[in-house]
Amino acid sequence: MGKKTFLLAPDSFKESMTAKEVCLAMEKGLRKVYPDARYIHVPMADGGEGTMQSLVDASGGTLYEREVIGPLGRPVMASYDILGDGRTAVIEMASASGIHLVNKEQRNPLVTTSYGTGQLILACLEHGVTSIIIGLGGSATNDGGAGMAEALGASFLDASGTAIKRGGGSLGELEAIDVSGLDRRLKKVDIIVACDVANPLCGEQGASHVFGPQKGATPEMAGLLDANLAHYAEIAKQQLQRDVRDIPGAGAAGGLGAGLLIFTEASLQKGIDIVIHYSGLREKLAQADVVFTGEGGIDFQTKFGKTPHGVARAAKEARIPVIAIAGYVGEGIDSLYGEGIDAVFGIVPGAAELEQLLQEGPRNVERTMENIGRVIKLGLG
Amino acid sequence: MGKKTFLLAPDSFKESMTAKEVCLAMEKGLRKVYPDARYIHVPMADGGEGTMQSLVDASGGTLYEREVIGPLGRPVMASYDILGDGRTAVIEMASASGIHLVNKEQRNPLVTTSYGTGQLILACLEHGVTSIIIGLGGSATNDGGAGMAEALGASFLDASGTAIKRGGGSLGELEAIDVSGLDRRLKKVDIIVACDVANPLCGEQGASHVFGPQKGATPEMAGLLDANLAHYAEIAKQQLQRDVRDIPGAGAAGGLGAGLLIFTEASLQKGIDIVIHYSGLREKLAQADVVFTGEGGIDFQTKFGKTPHGVARAAKEARIPVIAIAGYVGEGIDSLYGEGIDAVFGIVPGAAELEQLLQEGPRNVERTMENIGRVIKLGLG
Repeated sequence: MGKKTFLLAPDSFKESMTAKEVCLAMEKGLRKVYPDARYIHVPMADGGEGTMQSLVDASGGTLYEREVIGPLGRPVMASYDILGDGRTAVIEMASASGIHLVNKEQRNPLVTTSYGTGQLILACLEHGVTSIIIGLGGSATNDGGAGMAEALGASFLDASGTAIKRGGGSLGELEAIDVSGLDRRLKKVDIIVACDVANPLCGEQGASHVFGPQKGATPEMAGLLDANLAHYAEIAKQQLQRDVRDIPGAGAAGGLGAGLLIFTEASLQKGIDIVIHYSGLREKLAQADVVFTGEGGIDFQTKFGKTPHGVARAAKEARIPVIAIAGYVGEGIDSLYGEGIDAVFGIVPGAAELEQLLQEGPRNVERTMENIGRVIKLGLG
Repeated sequence: MGKKTFLLAPDSFKESMTAKEVCLAMEKGLRKVYPDARYIHVPMADGGEGTMQSLVDASGGTLYEREVIGPLGRPVMASYDILGDGRTAVIEMASASGIHLVNKEQRNPLVTTSYGTGQLILACLEHGVTSIIIGLGGSATNDGGAGMAEALGASFLDASGTAIKRGGGSLGELEAIDVSGLDRRLKKVDIIVACDVANPLCGEQGASHVFGPQKGATPEMAGLLDANLAHYAEIAKQQLQRDVRDIPGAGAAGGLGAGLLIFTEASLQKGIDIVIHYSGLREKLAQADVVFTGEGGIDFQTKFGKTPHGVARAAKEARIPVIAIAGYVGEGIDSLYGEGIDAVFGIVPGAAELEQLLQEGPRNVERTMENIGRVIKLGLG
């Protein structure tokens, strides 16, 4: 038995450790048992908060800042990243058009616009990248991505040929979409949209009814916004031959999913799959004897696109065993054993309050990993 | 690789599960991974609460009840057991002379007596046993075991040749000990005293100063009791040629340790060693591939005579790996790895209050054991 190679591919433990910090604590624990092993760190994320940052961290990318038009029309400072390969840009739509940019009292999805996200895409195009990854979480908008498309050169006109106002509340007046001014560089880049919701653009499960309320929509507003998005989709279908209304994920980020599908050659992908691709997890897996993954919580929901599940699926293809750790082990972990997760361990040492456990995270990861390592080393089979 | 044999030798998880229940939950978890393995249950104890009961349970012993004189001189119902071998009796001194038999307001170690414990020993002698195991925890007394000896036929006399009153407060008047009436059967039985404290009979670390206060002694009373025990020890030394004052453990149970050493051929042993002997753990170990142990809490104190440590020591001699689980994993477990405990896992699934965890014990043991089993089965070495 030669030197072991351990692949460490955890998500962050929310409010306790970044994925990078979890990797470090994992290695520290295992190293007490296997001082000479090889340790490959692949900090992961699954499309939730911090996903794009993890890609940037993993690739040694560079952060750029740019002033754009925020969700309420006022300028905000937003950021995007160019990955270490120099050819891939990463955008979080929330950076330009996020709900955190709007005070609770000012939340109004009738007027919020995704225009700033379009400006960020434009900025990325100026870097000459060949791919743009766009994360959709945390939007303040419900405009179907019309603002984004406007920033990229599209025009949204009413019956009199005048540009309509920005925001989902005005889409009801839309009569014509003019894409003749759309930035031509868009045709030459891959747009990869990180999207972990399957909501269609319209209807009960659509953007307005499901996500509108958290953006400040009353039931009446949600009804109006839903009708407006349906109208917008209908015009896009007729005038641009893009039928996106019922595509799962079209309703993500106030319909920005739909907008990207209408105006670019975007593909919607699960966040975890994008991270697995860009992190090079599959290639690194080939060298590993065991994979360790983990997340703040592991339970029956883990199999719906969470990091430990994505890592396990990839590892299972490669026939590498996977051991997961978690700050909270919930109901339904039995269902994960068939999905490539061979074992799950909690890291909590005893009765304790969450606050304390969040602080002790690294120590508990380290101890748990050491003891898992000790059992592995017994080689009992 | 043939069928595995798993030896399950946990202590109880206090306020959550008996040792037997822990064994059952352990097997239930492991069985999901190793349905055809052999499971040997050896519910353990370490001299603390429940120790004697575990011996009785393990051997299929029989409980007997008997009315005896309680610590305050009033009759109480006490019990003892005859182990399944029919030749070994088990007594908990607390059953006859325990602090739980005295209301808080009535606690007074000047007068409490170990007489009832002597009566229980007598009852055991009547069964014709060859060994009596006596557990010392939880006493209400501070009489140096004089009451116990009196019940067995010894006389404690003052200067006028009159019997002194019972209780540690009267030992100052002792002038002569007459052992001519001592039950002769005592010479023919092994008295094995389960004692996990190393306190001498007298002095700052002695029975009166260390344990007196919890039995109701004021500082003045503790001083008097300590002086009386020293006087008692001196007379025993001069008249009976037994010098027990400084023997570690002589101060256990208000000096009952000393009394047993003076009046019988007792040997003081650690509770865990007695349990290991009577449970047949060593013989069963020979058949095991892995030993699982555990206790409510595991920390730096575990190596001072606690069950997981005792089990691990025995297993280490037999070169069998030991994996421990605990409801609480505390500081200092590193020091256990060298003592034969190969790995320690907490069973707690996440932030939670103690009360809830105590209730969920079996489920958490089961889940943890299943996952340890799953790692073992990977056979990664």
